[in-house]
Amino acid sequence: MKHIKIAPTPPMGWNSWDCYGASVTEAEVKGNADYIATNLKQYGWTYVVVDIQWFEPTANSSFYHPFTPLTMDRYSRLLPSVNRFPSAKNGQGFKPLGDYIHNLGLKFGIHIMRGIPRQAVHSNSGILGGDFTARDIAHTNSICPWNTDMYGVDATKEGAQQYYNSLFELYASWGVDFVKVDDIAASRLYNTHLSEIELIRNAIDHCGREMVLSLSPGPAPLEFAEDFKKNANMWRITDDFWDQWNLLYNMFERCEKWEKHVEPGLWPDCDMLPLGHLGIRSVDGPGGDRWTRFTKDEQVTMMTLWSIFRSPLMFGGELRDNDPWTLSLLTNKEVLQVNQYSHSNRLVSRKGDLVVWTARGCQGETYLAIFNISENEAFINTSLSQIGLFGKIQARDLWKQEDMGFVQENIEYTLPPHGSKLIKLY
Amino acid sequence: MKHIKIAPTPPMGWNSWDCYGASVTEAEVKGNADYIATNLKQYGWTYVVVDIQWFEPTANSSFYHPFTPLTMDRYSRLLPSVNRFPSAKNGQGFKPLGDYIHNLGLKFGIHIMRGIPRQAVHSNSGILGGDFTARDIAHTNSICPWNTDMYGVDATKEGAQQYYNSLFELYASWGVDFVKVDDIAASRLYNTHLSEIELIRNAIDHCGREMVLSLSPGPAPLEFAEDFKKNANMWRITDDFWDQWNLLYNMFERCEKWEKHVEPGLWPDCDMLPLGHLGIRSVDGPGGDRWTRFTKDEQVTMMTLWSIFRSPLMFGGELRDNDPWTLSLLTNKEVLQVNQYSHSNRLVSRKGDLVVWTARGCQGETYLAIFNISENEAFINTSLSQIGLFGKIQARDLWKQEDMGFVQENIEYTLPPHGSKLIKLY
Amino acid sequence: MKHIKIAPTPPMGWNSWDCYGASVTEAEVKGNADYIATNLKQYGWTYVVVDIQWFEPTANSSFYHPFTPLTMDRYSRLLPSVNRFPSAKNGQGFKPLGDYIHNLGLKFGIHIMRGIPRQAVHSNSGILGGDFTARDIAHTNSICPWNTDMYGVDATKEGAQQYYNSLFELYASWGVDFVKVDDIAASRLYNTHLSEIELIRNAIDHCGREMVLSLSPGPAPLEFAEDFKKNANMWRITDDFWDQWNLLYNMFERCEKWEKHVEPGLWPDCDMLPLGHLGIRSVDGPGGDRWTRFTKDEQVTMMTLWSIFRSPLMFGGELRDNDPWTLSLLTNKEVLQVNQYSHSNRLVSRKGDLVVWTARGCQGETYLAIFNISENEAFINTSLSQIGLFGKIQARDLWKQEDMGFVQENIEYTLPPHGSKLIKLY
Amino acid sequence: MKHIKIAPTPPMGWNSWDCYGASVTEAEVKGNADYIATNLKQYGWTYVVVDIQWFEPTANSSFYHPFTPLTMDRYSRLLPSVNRFPSAKNGQGFKPLGDYIHNLGLKFGIHIMRGIPRQAVHSNSGILGGDFTARDIAHTNSICPWNTDMYGVDATKEGAQQYYNSLFELYASWGVDFVKVDDIAASRLYNTHLSEIELIRNAIDHCGREMVLSLSPGPAPLEFAEDFKKNANMWRITDDFWDQWNLLYNMFERCEKWEKHVEPGLWPDCDMLPLGHLGIRSVDGPGGDRWTRFTKDEQVTMMTLWSIFRSPLMFGGELRDNDPWTLSLLTNKEVLQVNQYSHSNRLVSRKGDLVVWTARGCQGETYLAIFNISENEAFINTSLSQIGLFGKIQARDLWKQEDMGFVQENIEYTLPPHGSKLIKLY
Repeated sequence: MKHIKIAPTPPMGWNSWDCYGASVTEAEVKGNADYIATNLKQYGWTYVVVDIQWFEPTANSSFYHPFTPLTMDRYSRLLPSVNRFPSAKNGQGFKPLGDYIHNLGLKFGIHIMRGIPRQAVHSNSGILGGDFTARDIAHTNSICPWNTDMYGVDATKEGAQQYYNSLFELYASWGVDFVKVDDIAASRLYNTHLSEIELIRNAIDHCGREMVLSLSPGPAPLEFAEDFKKNANMWRITDDFWDQWNLLYNMFERCEKWEKHVEPGLWPDCDMLPLGHLGIRSVDGPGGDRWTRFTKDEQVTMMTLWSIFRSPLMFGGELRDNDPWTLSLLTNKEVLQVNQYSHSNRLVSRKGDLVVWTARGCQGETYLAIFNISENEAFINTSLSQIGLFGKIQARDLWKQEDMGFVQENIEYTLPPHGSKLIKLY
Repeated sequence: MKHIKIAPTPPMGWNSWDCYGASVTEAEVKGNADYIATNLKQYGWTYVVVDIQWFEPTANSSFYHPFTPLTMDRYSRLLPSVNRFPSAKNGQGFKPLGDYIHNLGLKFGIHIMRGIPRQAVHSNSGILGGDFTARDIAHTNSICPWNTDMYGVDATKEGAQQYYNSLFELYASWGVDFVKVDDIAASRLYNTHLSEIELIRNAIDHCGREMVLSLSPGPAPLEFAEDFKKNANMWRITDDFWDQWNLLYNMFERCEKWEKHVEPGLWPDCDMLPLGHLGIRSVDGPGGDRWTRFTKDEQVTMMTLWSIFRSPLMFGGELRDNDPWTLSLLTNKEVLQVNQYSHSNRLVSRKGDLVVWTARGCQGETYLAIFNISENEAFINTSLSQIGLFGKIQARDLWKQEDMGFVQENIEYTLPPHGSKLIKLY
Repeated sequence: MKHIKIAPTPPMGWNSWDCYGASVTEAEVKGNADYIATNLKQYGWTYVVVDIQWFEPTANSSFYHPFTPLTMDRYSRLLPSVNRFPSAKNGQGFKPLGDYIHNLGLKFGIHIMRGIPRQAVHSNSGILGGDFTARDIAHTNSICPWNTDMYGVDATKEGAQQYYNSLFELYASWGVDFVKVDDIAASRLYNTHLSEIELIRNAIDHCGREMVLSLSPGPAPLEFAEDFKKNANMWRITDDFWDQWNLLYNMFERCEKWEKHVEPGLWPDCDMLPLGHLGIRSVDGPGGDRWTRFTKDEQVTMMTLWSIFRSPLMFGGELRDNDPWTLSLLTNKEVLQVNQYSHSNRLVSRKGDLVVWTARGCQGETYLAIFNISENEAFINTSLSQIGLFGKIQARDLWKQEDMGFVQENIEYTLPPHGSKLIKLY
Repeated sequence: MKHIKIAPTPPMGWNSWDCYGASVTEAEVKGNADYIATNLKQYGWTYVVVDIQWFEPTANSSFYHPFTPLTMDRYSRLLPSVNRFPSAKNGQGFKPLGDYIHNLGLKFGIHIMRGIPRQAVHSNSGILGGDFTARDIAHTNSICPWNTDMYGVDATKEGAQQYYNSLFELYASWGVDFVKVDDIAASRLYNTHLSEIELIRNAIDHCGREMVLSLSPGPAPLEFAEDFKKNANMWRITDDFWDQWNLLYNMFERCEKWEKHVEPGLWPDCDMLPLGHLGIRSVDGPGGDRWTRFTKDEQVTMMTLWSIFRSPLMFGGELRDNDPWTLSLLTNKEVLQVNQYSHSNRLVSRKGDLVVWTARGCQGETYLAIFNISENEAFINTSLSQIGLFGKIQARDLWKQEDMGFVQENIEYTLPPHGSKLIKLY
């Protein structure tokens, strides 16, 4: 379980999917990395993640192109397409882009699909080391239901671990710090792909470089919680999350379900934050080029839930188009403190659509998050005795960064629909 | 919700069922009350509860006598049988016994069955106040499946509340402080009897005396949690609990299920403690006259779970026969402190049959309860970061009342089967 | 299994419930018996059945009077109330009424509730033979959820069979030919009361008189099918059936479910026919004094289903108020022939709400029942090969009693909503 | 629904799977065809079916070779591999073999997998007619879980019907009379592939030649019964059936479930008859080269069930190795008469493991099949009135082809475990 040391706090960063779908370019990645270095790094934002299909020359939106040829080396390993990532020329792969990001003081992440390219299997190309071919290790009943690039790798076959090792050695040589593996946590066709998760865990441990391992898509099945913990640092507890209220509403139930499994190094993941400028070359969501459809109340509610639950924080929009409001959501140190450093995070009560969570802080302070996820204004009265506080207590509104004076016995709020409060009590 | 003030901490006391079944006598009640006053009162033990069938002259064990005549007044109210409770002579009811217990500085409790005696309905006796008869308010489809004394009261009928008010006025006149109402929380034939729970809540509020309201039997259905809270102070989360390991084993799941519902004044109830000398005139359990069948490890495990979960503590054995070991379980102030005053009580993790609970104390200390409920010796490693503790921490074994020095990062124990530890970290 | 000889064809007759609820009088019973003798006997209608509460002096509608005193002998046996059945005076019970009905060439039936009167148990009256009392044999957890008259009898108690024997000896002395036992086939509180069914089977076999045994209410659980067959002649497959389309619609599914269990002597029972003048002193259904709410198409559909399924036929209305249409439904010999003498009755197909049943006749003829139970006119094409008929076949419309000439390969009909056809092919 | 004319009685024939797995050769097919022409044709045995992988040069057992190259034309259509079917040389496909079989007076059948070869998709080969390529019509989420040859065809794509039409035009040119389509009725990964079933129905109707359409594998879901009927002539109601008692035992439940759906032209299919010499180049079952593991009683029970249920009859063993016993099972005209010409086939009763079926014959005779599928000898008493027979009836044992004299009221048998009787009553 030494992998838990790699992500002692929930990873924070940027991911290209919500704004660029499968089609992000090197310039766009660098532009967002620059933005983070300038504006966000000091708040803890670190990871810059290139999402799916960087190996597909024809990628141009969030739609996939079935059976399209991919950029691949002779060892059945996918490579960045040079038309989209010019620095990958001459077989350099992502090494130059990784260097660029590291030079900004940030970390570099990539997305991969589990398995081996179907084009490798049908052309029967080789595997580094020479003893096996793609056809030897491809699983005969293991596809991704929503993407035609890969076959699963059959862990019972000789050569299976060797192939995954060859992949992660390549990624280590590129300087990859974070790998988001897709079609692995919650297959819609099969069960969770545990044996490939283990192959990947072994390959990371073998490659000589620390990498955060993130598993997608969700909802990851709760019954495999201990397996996810044993192998990964984060795993999606939700299907793709977008700027739609019903998805945010449902996240409260998902967080409740996973509450007991949040611990340092092991992070149930609520998915990217669809904030700011979204859908530039993506139609998922569904929706095209747009500003986030969440109201400001909903944005605060989302950030509050992700914080009191300690989800990883991965910004999904085009950072360079942020307005001051959006930026303010990412730079509230007192709120980020809850996400990064609180403990004993738990649901106190859910009565209908009135939800209360609490957590403790390092100096013994108590955090209280109060949510009205109903469609009507609601009055919420939280008894302090229920969270172990007696007598007069100081309170502070973390979003406003304002002291509220002393409270006693109860904290009462009238909240608008979809509204929330995040309070520090000490 | 002002009823929550009546039981700010989990009630502690003695109940006659586990040793005397349906047949306890006045002398036995007084004898146990005397013992509490001398040996236990200073540790918080307060309530002396006379369990079922005090109104049945023929009661002589834990078996019921179907359709047997009961002691009843002309207003369809059951009275203590004078052959068993001599001080009840001349219509004094439980007033003299209540006085005796109050004079010891203790509190007096009784058990009742919900409803109105069938003998009142079939003889059509009256109700105090004169407007209605027993037949007017008896529910036509509401019996207890395991006892033939009563019909349910139909809350939709005029006279129903009047009858319950007449009952609790009588109990108030006797000085009753605690009422355990049976056949109401989890009927085996019907659903939870919510409307009679509400009649009883109203009757207590109306009678002018504070009484703790305890609902039986269990398992109370979780879906009625908010209803139990709105009306009662404690409710059984289990069917009858006895000195059998499988029942204790199952309690861990019950506590996990009810964890979110423990709060000051509102106590999910794990049932009586079957310790010491049991079954003197009871064959329930099943088992006759015996010493508790729990091993010492199991007794500690039970007390530890009841403490970290904050269940009410009601001793079930004949107190006067306690040996030093049994007495020691009831007089460990540091353990009782966890039961009476901890907060934020929660399951940290359950991996198979290795269970960890935590709670916080009033001075900011953390309590940790570690259980091995498997059939084999087991090694349990609990990460302190998971419960929000970093750096070097002082530890104390509460059952041994010994300091353990400093711990860091992990607490590790090898526990025997059915064994447990209760640790204070500060 | 010799009881199957008692009802070789589905019993046909009249029952007092649909028009008089719990309150029928002797004059009304005799009036309907006279009508049968004059108008229906020659078509096979035979049984005259007095339904529930003939032992209750205060009965006056379909409502029950909770806990009301009942007419009972000193052996805990209920007797007809003389105010309603004057001929029962001087302890003659139903003997005079039985004689009257027998003299008309008809057979006499009564309804009873399983169990022993609660008033016998609470007054602890005796049982014929002297060894036991009512209290000895009453079941401690066995009531009827909708009627307060009785407790169940506990078959494990000595005296239980003796009590039931004493009941059926009395009924035999009255000349009873048919007993409808209620609260026994489908308890809403408990499971099917199998042990009391067996007590009753034994008591009938012991009493020396043949009686048809009919079990109520329904829906009798299919998993007890073999138990019903082993003990009874008919059992209700439905809850109370009334003149409402949705109940008739649902009967098609019930008949499909029970299809395999129809055989000579053993009759799954679709309940009484709510035709003609209904609800004279009944508000069940719900509905008061009225003419049947079924349209003529629905009445034909009901009679057709009861016939092709071979349900018992018990008319529910006040026979003396029949109009010619209603009488015509009861006197179509060709249709009744299907009910009384067909075999191999089976659902051929159900496609949505288009239903086809078939049966064979004694001369090798085939019966075909075609139903449109949808809300729209529908065209139904039935392939003759599917029911084993090839070549040119003669067809006859049984409701019209008209020849239809020859058919070949298919029978096609356009039927109105809720409409049906019953055809003989030969 | 005109396709029902193509198979007015259950198809009878031989299939290569049970003895040769995926590897049958032309010589073996011809040898078995010759045997049928000589020994079985006069009893109704007609179809000679070449099962899976005739397009795979490397096929050599019942194991598949993942991703192996297949024999294919330039229009993405699979062709017989010439190394296994020499007469297919020069692009003649199965035409010469079809001619051979037709010249024997028999009919020719082939097995196909639904979909389009993956090798066509990854090499993007064309489709006859020229407008589309394999990649255009391949479904992006539709594989067979147990065979890597094909992708499903996406019916929503232009070109999909065109491709299937090109397939069946080719098969028509070969003289194919029977097509068994696999991976289509009960996918283990997806639901039933209805849209491809419809493409195939259209393609057959379009090709100008009558072909029986058989769908595999099973168990076909009952909820799609009407869809199967609308498109196919037979569909498997079971997963692969082999010579193991538990599979035969389970078939009784499957037949019961499908009973209502047997009608002329539409045949729920119990799968091949694993009799005689099996597993010559197959290890499925599981088991290698062997004589059928069914006892003689079990073989008779199987043939009796397939007959009274009217399943298609496809012999699975190497016919040329038949012994007289095995041949006798295939040439009992009186038993085959039940399979081919009975009607109104139905389960009469199942009491535990004693099962009775009945059917009617064309001359009004009744067939009765009695099964003891328990592990112990059992006495079975069948009441004749229950199947509509009264009075004295002549009986004949069809397996023995012996008259049994007259029976009355009951037919009684003591049957060995797994034993059965097939009786004609007339």
